[in-house]
Amino acid sequence: MKRLPLHFDIEAQQGEARTGVLTTRRGLIETPVFMPIGTAGTVKGIRFEELESSELDAKIILGNTYHLWLRPGIDVIRSAGGLHRFIGWDRALLTDSGGFQVWSLGALRKITEDGTEFRSHVDGSLRFLSPEVSMEVQAALGSDIVMVFDECAPGEASHAEAERSMNLTARWAKRSRTAFDQLQKTGADTGQLEVDELSGSQALFGIIQGASHLDLRRNSLEQTINIGFDGYAIGGLSVGEEKSVMFEIIDEIAPRMPKESPRYLMGVGTPEDLVEAVARGIDMFDCVLPTRNGRTGQAFTSTGKLNIKNAQWATDSRPLDELCPCSVCRRHSRAYLRHLYMSGEMLASILLTHHNLAFFLDTMRGVRQSIRSGDFPTFRREFTGRLGANGE
Amino acid sequence: MKRLPLHFDIEAQQGEARTGVLTTRRGLIETPVFMPIGTAGTVKGIRFEELESSELDAKIILGNTYHLWLRPGIDVIRSAGGLHRFIGWDRALLTDSGGFQVWSLGALRKITEDGTEFRSHVDGSLRFLSPEVSMEVQAALGSDIVMVFDECAPGEASHAEAERSMNLTARWAKRSRTAFDQLQKTGADTGQLEVDELSGSQALFGIIQGASHLDLRRNSLEQTINIGFDGYAIGGLSVGEEKSVMFEIIDEIAPRMPKESPRYLMGVGTPEDLVEAVARGIDMFDCVLPTRNGRTGQAFTSTGKLNIKNAQWATDSRPLDELCPCSVCRRHSRAYLRHLYMSGEMLASILLTHHNLAFFLDTMRGVRQSIRSGDFPTFRREFTGRLGANGE
Repeated sequence: MKRLPLHFDIEAQQGEARTGVLTTRRGLIETPVFMPIGTAGTVKGIRFEELESSELDAKIILGNTYHLWLRPGIDVIRSAGGLHRFIGWDRALLTDSGGFQVWSLGALRKITEDGTEFRSHVDGSLRFLSPEVSMEVQAALGSDIVMVFDECAPGEASHAEAERSMNLTARWAKRSRTAFDQLQKTGADTGQLEVDELSGSQALFGIIQGASHLDLRRNSLEQTINIGFDGYAIGGLSVGEEKSVMFEIIDEIAPRMPKESPRYLMGVGTPEDLVEAVARGIDMFDCVLPTRNGRTGQAFTSTGKLNIKNAQWATDSRPLDELCPCSVCRRHSRAYLRHLYMSGEMLASILLTHHNLAFFLDTMRGVRQSIRSGDFPTFRREFTGRLGANGE
Repeated sequence: MKRLPLHFDIEAQQGEARTGVLTTRRGLIETPVFMPIGTAGTVKGIRFEELESSELDAKIILGNTYHLWLRPGIDVIRSAGGLHRFIGWDRALLTDSGGFQVWSLGALRKITEDGTEFRSHVDGSLRFLSPEVSMEVQAALGSDIVMVFDECAPGEASHAEAERSMNLTARWAKRSRTAFDQLQKTGADTGQLEVDELSGSQALFGIIQGASHLDLRRNSLEQTINIGFDGYAIGGLSVGEEKSVMFEIIDEIAPRMPKESPRYLMGVGTPEDLVEAVARGIDMFDCVLPTRNGRTGQAFTSTGKLNIKNAQWATDSRPLDELCPCSVCRRHSRAYLRHLYMSGEMLASILLTHHNLAFFLDTMRGVRQSIRSGDFPTFRREFTGRLGANGE
């Protein structure tokens, strides 16, 4: 029997929602799972010790190929023996392909059949990213899950534009697969790790594109499955389209994705988005919201969003979230957190980031538990019901 | 027998160097002790959990009356029940008087016999700080050790200017003492805490001024002792004078300070300054260096200062300090820390601050241990010898 880079075992299912275990060369990951974003080799504002603590217990984080490639550069990371060793993180890492970041540069990049030419935001130098380069960089990073190099079309793209882009993504996916397989054979993967029953090599996920057009999404799904990957992602959502459109696409695509493979919804979303996407069969998520919004003073709580800048919290001795068991909520008041934020103190970002991550990761724990116990519909209804309480 | 706000017991002495225990209403503090600076109710870039951990184990931190008075303001802190409760810190707190911060404003402040008028750096409003106001604010903060309101003269002040300033400080010290005693009687101290054998009230420390003039320093010492305080501080050092002048003053004054009271050298200094001042009989220190320099990329190590920005560390897999047992040095390389710093990542400040505080607090542990075991001269010689190794 062929040894695979990872195993995925579904433990319980309720409607489309499912909970399972993703076995990677760096440990087990219970799904549905939320992956904090570690853009430049750090989840902004939080130490790895906190991410590993039983309170947060993040089993996998995401690194951005684009950022790490530009700085510190692949030579530096390769000389350290890969990204895990460079940053000091022994748990699983997923890296994106750089496609989305380069696409986000807008006018600063030029897309051809071959790949994407752009100017580095770090030093202005002209750079070229392609399926082959992205696979090479991700092999040097040694991440446990590699994403194919894709093109993302804007949410409002016309059918013709989205179709062109989706077909380019399919051709790039084939080239990614070929380059990836070659790199695994030549031992370019710095993260290679022998594990019982696993191949020890990197896993490669395909990405379904097609903007807001259901026929293109189905076509993209088919082409992606035909190439064959260790997992499948829905890309190009949460990029400007209406929320109803996003869920329409997930409704259409998720149930058609291979049942035995992990399904990853890229770049989504709010706590309610996560729960709603789980209800539609999604297993993996990443999003900047808990970290980025933490730095700008927004807390996610069980009763909805809370803006710590508001004057109403100036003498409020309550924690951010009265239902939250995290170390920030156990110790600090809204009044203190507001003071820190208004004073420009770094600790405001540190503490809000910690709480927000705790809330996202706790939410996923609650999701998994409720699917296992058969109470997911109740969890979903009560969770969503509570979120409206703040009225923010 | 009159119950005092704190006890100070010397355990061992070697030459002028001494180690002992300062018993406060919020626990025991082994001396010599280094107090991290918690300006606005946070030691910048580090969580209280880390400060309390066995790795750092900071027993006392310093809060700045000036900053907290202006923001969030005394009403907010009083409504929380004092600074300890507001920030969530149960260990000892020392607050300065605001005198030094106001003096640092330079042209923005006007000093009269009555006090100091200045414009708030937060909102530009006209404010007035005096011995009476400072004592009232510090009572509302409920800090465990209160400092008298003093005037700091510049290091290069003439004899006449320094004498005027020193005598003003002495008159302000008397007014501070009177106002402080009155506030303790009226229960204004929000930190009041009943403890066996202690009075439960705040402690008040006097400050010796006199710039670089030894006769004025001796005069200031005499006037300060005559008023009578729970501890004595040397102020107005490390404010522009030569290092040799600083040690000349400490040499002259420290041995004449009451032996049975804690001796506090304000705002000093580098690790070598701390060890040298201990050798001259000092028990307490505070300084912004470990935290401020951590944020600007400078690490203090056993072989001297290390600038993490230097290109030479780009692929260096060694920790900041090969002799340091702290969690940052156990986990992260110079290459990674440099990458974080160059990328503007908050984690650079967080990790460098942590290491620097660990180094300062470890140094003081080493100092105490060596005095107890009678090896302080050896410790002092070896510690200072190693510091030159980096050549920075």
